[in-house]
Amino acid sequence: MTHLIAIGGSDAGISAALRARELDPSTDVTVVVADEYPNFSICGIPYYFTGEVAPWQSLAHRTAADLEAAGMNLRLNTFGTGIDVAGRKLAVRTPGGSTEDLAYDELIVGTGALPSHAGITGLDVLTPEDGVHVIHSMGDTFALDRFLDNHRPQSAIIVGAGYVGLEMAEAFTVRGLHVTQIQRGPEVLSTLDPELGALVHDELTTHGVEIITNTTISGIQKTAAGLNVTGIRSGSSFEQTADLVLVVVGVRPNTELLEQSGATLGAGGAVVVDEWMRTGLPHVWGAGDGIITHHRLLGPTYLPLGTTAHKQGRIAGENALGGDRKFAGSVGTQVVKIFDLVAARTGLRDHEATAAGYTPATVAAAADDHKRYYPGAQPISFRITGDTNTGLLLGAQLVGRRETETAKRVDTYATALYAGLTIEQVSELDLSYTPPLGSPWDAAQVATQAWDAAQRVSLARV
Amino acid sequence: MTHLIAIGGSDAGISAALRARELDPSTDVTVVVADEYPNFSICGIPYYFTGEVAPWQSLAHRTAADLEAAGMNLRLNTFGTGIDVAGRKLAVRTPGGSTEDLAYDELIVGTGALPSHAGITGLDVLTPEDGVHVIHSMGDTFALDRFLDNHRPQSAIIVGAGYVGLEMAEAFTVRGLHVTQIQRGPEVLSTLDPELGALVHDELTTHGVEIITNTTISGIQKTAAGLNVTGIRSGSSFEQTADLVLVVVGVRPNTELLEQSGATLGAGGAVVVDEWMRTGLPHVWGAGDGIITHHRLLGPTYLPLGTTAHKQGRIAGENALGGDRKFAGSVGTQVVKIFDLVAARTGLRDHEATAAGYTPATVAAAADDHKRYYPGAQPISFRITGDTNTGLLLGAQLVGRRETETAKRVDTYATALYAGLTIEQVSELDLSYTPPLGSPWDAAQVATQAWDAAQRVSLARV
Repeated sequence: MTHLIAIGGSDAGISAALRARELDPSTDVTVVVADEYPNFSICGIPYYFTGEVAPWQSLAHRTAADLEAAGMNLRLNTFGTGIDVAGRKLAVRTPGGSTEDLAYDELIVGTGALPSHAGITGLDVLTPEDGVHVIHSMGDTFALDRFLDNHRPQSAIIVGAGYVGLEMAEAFTVRGLHVTQIQRGPEVLSTLDPELGALVHDELTTHGVEIITNTTISGIQKTAAGLNVTGIRSGSSFEQTADLVLVVVGVRPNTELLEQSGATLGAGGAVVVDEWMRTGLPHVWGAGDGIITHHRLLGPTYLPLGTTAHKQGRIAGENALGGDRKFAGSVGTQVVKIFDLVAARTGLRDHEATAAGYTPATVAAAADDHKRYYPGAQPISFRITGDTNTGLLLGAQLVGRRETETAKRVDTYATALYAGLTIEQVSELDLSYTPPLGSPWDAAQVATQAWDAAQRVSLARV
Repeated sequence: MTHLIAIGGSDAGISAALRARELDPSTDVTVVVADEYPNFSICGIPYYFTGEVAPWQSLAHRTAADLEAAGMNLRLNTFGTGIDVAGRKLAVRTPGGSTEDLAYDELIVGTGALPSHAGITGLDVLTPEDGVHVIHSMGDTFALDRFLDNHRPQSAIIVGAGYVGLEMAEAFTVRGLHVTQIQRGPEVLSTLDPELGALVHDELTTHGVEIITNTTISGIQKTAAGLNVTGIRSGSSFEQTADLVLVVVGVRPNTELLEQSGATLGAGGAVVVDEWMRTGLPHVWGAGDGIITHHRLLGPTYLPLGTTAHKQGRIAGENALGGDRKFAGSVGTQVVKIFDLVAARTGLRDHEATAAGYTPATVAAAADDHKRYYPGAQPISFRITGDTNTGLLLGAQLVGRRETETAKRVDTYATALYAGLTIEQVSELDLSYTPPLGSPWDAAQVATQAWDAAQRVSLARV
C-alpha cells in the first residue's frame, strides 16, 4: 500500500489524489489543504459576484464529503512547512499551530500560485477591510463579499484587464458599481492581439465599464475621498479614486516549499519538472500553477491554467503509483466570456512564434458562425498564425458572440495544434455542418483558407 | 487559357468553378445548370418551410449575378446529355429543346443525386398536385409550397426519418400540420445508435410528431379520404391516411451521363473516382453526390454530403487546371438540429467498425456542457467508439440541447479522426475552459476517459 500525500486542495492536488485512488483504491491518500475549502472552482468566483452562482458552496467541484468518500484523508487549515526529502517526511503546521511530521511514500506538491502585487505600494498595508482586494481564494472571496455588503461601494477600480479582471468588471457592473479598469498595455486582454482585444474593449464600454489603457499603477493610498490609485499614464502622472480597488495583475508561482527542499526554478520562477512531473527530488512530484508547463510549441514555459493543472495532477498521481505517463503538453488554449462576447486563443501569436524561432504570418478573417440566411448568424473574428516555411498551424485567436460556439471552435485548432497539422490540413478537416449551426466550410476553415490565400498573394508579389 | 465546363449548379460544380477562377482568373468557366437555381442551399429548404428563411431567394449561397461576377458563364435550364470524351465535347439540351455541343478542355461532372423512391408504388404516377412530394430541388420546394398554400393540408405523413425527414417534421409541425413520421428501422435517425436516436424520438414526440417505427411503406394511393400509404409494420399490414405525403428515404447517385461515357460504378452505384477526382475518362473529373467518397477509415464508400461535395469540387477545380491535390477524405461528420436538440456523429459506429475490420468497443457517457454551478448546464450524451487493439478513436456520436455547443464539439473528434489520434490522446488535448462554456476536462474528454475506464474494467475481468 502506497502512502501518498498531496499538498494543495485545488486542481492539481485533488486531481492527483483522485487519479491515485482510481488506479489503486488501496492507496492511502492524504491531502494537505491550506484553508478549509478543498476543490473549489476558483475560476467560478466571478460568477458568485454576478449573482449567477449561489450559494458559494456550489462552487465546490466536489464537497469535502465527496472527497472523503473517494478515499482521501483531508487535513484542512494545514500548511506544509518543510520536506525531509531523504526521510520522506512532510512537516506541517496544524490548525492548532503545532508542528507535525507526516510520513509519505510519494509526495505531490500542488501549492499553486499567489496573486502578484506588481510592486504596487500600499498593497502590503491596506487590507480588504480598507477596500483593497485580490481575488485568488475563497478567503479573498468572503472578504470581498463582506466589503460589498458592509460598505455598499459605488465605484471600483480594477487594476489589470486579464481574464479575471474582465470577469470581475462584468460582476461589479452587474452589481451596479461604476467600474474603471486600468490596463498597463495598449489594449485589454493582452493575451490576444490588440485588434481582437479592441472588440472586447468595445463590449466592456458598451456595458458602461470605463477602460484606461497604457497606464501603470504604482501605489494605492487611503484618503478621505476614498482609495486613491496613482501611477503613470502614457508618460504623465495618473490618479483616480474609488470606493474599492481590486488588483488582478497575474500570479506568481508559490514555490517556497519546493525551493527550500532543493528543487530547481525555471521559466517564470516556477519549479522545473520533467514531463513525468518529477521535480528531481526523489519521490517528490510537482503539478499545477507552481511549476513550469511543457508547451508543445514552446517547450518549458510558465503558463498557469486550471485545465493544465488538472492534467498535470492526473499524471503525477498516476506516476507516483509507478505509472509511466508523460504530460502531453499544453498548447495554451484559453477562453473567456465577457458579457455576451467570447474570446479564445490557442497556440502562439505572431511575436511569440517569432521568438520561438518560427517564421510566422498572421492573417485576420471574419466568417459567420452559421449560414447567413438562417436567423441569428453573427460573424466570428479570427486571427490565424501559421509558419510561412512549413505551412504549420501555429495559433488561432477568435472573438465571437456568446451564441456562436466560439469556445468549442477554438478546440478544433487546439486539436490540430496537438496533432501538428498544417493550415491546409485544417481546411481539409471534415467538420460538421447544418445551416442553423455552421457552414459547408466551417468558419474555422474560412479563416485558414484566408491565411492560405494571403500567402499566395504574398508569394505572387515576390 | 483553359476552357472548363462544370455540370451541376450545386455544391460540387460551383465549388469547382470558383476554385478554378480563384487560382487562374483567366480560366474560361461555363457552368451547366439543370434548373434556373444555381448555388442554392438545398440543406436550407426545411427552414424555408419553418418560415425562418424568407424569401426563398435568400437560400442562394450566391446569386446568379455573384456567380457571373466571379467569372462564370451560367447555362441555366440546360441538361448535359452526352460526353464525347475523345473529342472533348459536351452535348447539352438547351432551354429551347435543341441540342448543342460545347467544347471543353476539362470537364467536371457534379450531377449529384436523385431522390430514392425505395420501390414505393404510386410515386411514379402521383404528383405534387396530388399531395405527394419529394424535396430535393428548388422545383420540389416550389411545388410543396404551392400545395401547402392551395390545399391547406391538416396532416402529413413523412416516409423516412433521416436528416431531411426530421427537419421537415419540424417544419410541418411549426406550420400546424399533424405529422406522422414512418421509419423502416427500429428508431429514428438511424445514422446514430438507437440509444441516441431515442433522445431524438423523444424530442419529436414532445413536439407532437407521431413516430411509427419498424414500418416499411410499399405504396401510396389517392383515395376519397386522402392519401393512403400502405405497408408492413412489424410483420402486420399497415395503412394510414393524410392530406400530404412526403417521401424522404435517401438519395441515389445521378450517374447516367458518366456511366454512358464509360465511367466505372462502385460503392452505392456511384461513379468511381480516385483521390484526385479523376473519373478515368481523360479530362473528365467527378465531384459531389454522384461519385464515391474516399473515407479516411473505410476507403471508398458512398456518403453524399454537402460538406464533402464542396471539398471534392474544390479539388477537381484545382486539378483540372493542372493541380496535384488529393482529396484528404471524409470521416463522415454530420449534424442535425431537430427542434431544440442537436444530434451529431463522426467516424464509425460499432457495427461499421467491425465490418471494416476493427475490433471496436462503444461506450456511453454523459457530461454537462459546462460547470453545473453556472446556470443552464445541460448534459450531452455521448457514444464513443474505439479500437480495443490499438486504442484508436474510431467514432463519436453526440446528442445535446441546442445551447450546448454540441455541433462544434463533434469537430474535436472529427479533427482527432483526421489526425489518427487514439482515445487517450483525445483525453490529452488542451481544450478550452471557462465555467459558463466548459469544464476543466471538456465533456468530450469525460467521454473518452469513460471509454478508457471501461476498457480497464473489461481487462480486469479477463
